[in-house]
Amino acid sequence: MASIEIITRIETMQQRADELRRDGKVIAFVPTMGYLHEGHLSLIREARRHGDIVVISIFVNPAQFAPEEDFGEYPRALERDIELAEKEGVGIVFAPQSDRQMYPEGFQSYVELTALPQHLCGLSRPIFFRGVATVVTKLFNIVKPHVAVFGQKDFQQLTVIRRMARDLNVPVEIIGAPTVREPDGLAMSSRNAYLTDGQRTSALTLSQSLRQAQRVVADGETDAARVIEAATALISSRPDTEIDYIAVCDPETLDNVPVIDKPVVMALAVKVGSTRLIDNMLLTP
Amino acid sequence: MASIEIITRIETMQQRADELRRDGKVIAFVPTMGYLHEGHLSLIREARRHGDIVVISIFVNPAQFAPEEDFGEYPRALERDIELAEKEGVGIVFAPQSDRQMYPEGFQSYVELTALPQHLCGLSRPIFFRGVATVVTKLFNIVKPHVAVFGQKDFQQLTVIRRMARDLNVPVEIIGAPTVREPDGLAMSSRNAYLTDGQRTSALTLSQSLRQAQRVVADGETDAARVIEAATALISSRPDTEIDYIAVCDPETLDNVPVIDKPVVMALAVKVGSTRLIDNMLLTP
Repeated sequence: MASIEIITRIETMQQRADELRRDGKVIAFVPTMGYLHEGHLSLIREARRHGDIVVISIFVNPAQFAPEEDFGEYPRALERDIELAEKEGVGIVFAPQSDRQMYPEGFQSYVELTALPQHLCGLSRPIFFRGVATVVTKLFNIVKPHVAVFGQKDFQQLTVIRRMARDLNVPVEIIGAPTVREPDGLAMSSRNAYLTDGQRTSALTLSQSLRQAQRVVADGETDAARVIEAATALISSRPDTEIDYIAVCDPETLDNVPVIDKPVVMALAVKVGSTRLIDNMLLTP
Repeated sequence: MASIEIITRIETMQQRADELRRDGKVIAFVPTMGYLHEGHLSLIREARRHGDIVVISIFVNPAQFAPEEDFGEYPRALERDIELAEKEGVGIVFAPQSDRQMYPEGFQSYVELTALPQHLCGLSRPIFFRGVATVVTKLFNIVKPHVAVFGQKDFQQLTVIRRMARDLNVPVEIIGAPTVREPDGLAMSSRNAYLTDGQRTSALTLSQSLRQAQRVVADGETDAARVIEAATALISSRPDTEIDYIAVCDPETLDNVPVIDKPVVMALAVKVGSTRLIDNMLLTP
């Protein structure tokens, strides 16, 4: 096994990408904020199926955090991440040396979507998707991948990236990979590290309410309001939970769907203690 | 001489760009809105000095016109443009078949700068630079150039593109090429075609006032307000002129410079009849 390469400078990464492309290698890319868990590793495995070399980025992107959010405390573990990445056969880790390198003085160019961020998480995190679309654009220009893999767990993010790539003719194939869950159903997230034992039990209601919705819709329920009501009741029954939103929406536009007569996505965001968790599942009538 | 290639589909252009890159060709790109004049031809000649093959795009970009502007009447002459391009040794003309192809249904992703458009033309054309930055991003992703050439005549546009390319790590070298002028000093522009003979005489005051400013600053004048006042007087002395702005500004930030103690750009926009013209020159103390 070739040993993993760690690149911290933007120009070096761009040159390596040019070399790889000149050699005819297909570059498969997984952007991450680090603190890798089984969810990220599954994205890396998916990437390996699509490329000759897998590049991952590790960068906690300040542009997607609002001032009151957890940018400062967001868990970081670069050395452990590199070890895990190497075990999974990652070829290159791009870990920018500093935020300043990515956002130099006078930085002012952003990629913004006008409609998709007006739904779900965008409502309580108004700068989030601008930050995501901007950093992904930058990372695509730095890593120059042929293929990029994103988790379906961040469903709205995946929708935004797909739309952005299509609108701006970004020459990268966007692949969505299934959510990886703990044995008890909790969707993997770096933020799960914040949860106390009690909060973790409360957090199980997110996936439980989604599975319950899958069952009732499969059994013939078509009224989205009733499905949302049942999920609200289940999640609210646990201590330390505060629902941000529960929505049943069109997978492409994210518009609310009142009558479930085609596959829809049910998405939710819940604060458990002070930790904001998200999850989603496809509901098929 | 190899005959010129006309490409109307986005995917075809992307594939050709991939082929050219695989063959080790350096792609030099000149984006245009067509109706080519000597100014465009000078950009093409500059591009030939930097690349193995020159690609030009011809696309009147609806996203940079406000509803009350001249998108509908903007002069178009595709066949003549192709002839001129062929004579100048252009390898490929990318002329998208339809606006719909460039801006498909549901289009909603834009590249926006927060500060530079708050100056000069951005004040009277609030969506203009968003439209420019967005279409240039798209064209870069379609044509995949190594080098792109823009005219200094559209000085603020050049500044915006440079900043955007730097901020978003766009792997394209941006080159600014000098303004080409008619023998009487009028900066070349497709919009000059709108001018009556009388208006054309009035329009000469734009370059005259800039040259006058160059002289007085070279002779020791440092007060920007006095320089602007003299230009205002000269332009206003002619019939059919309405000044939008005359500014003396920092070439990188476009902030107003009150005391001229380093090279600055003097930029102006004037409506002559119903035709909005712009021009600019560097003033060196």
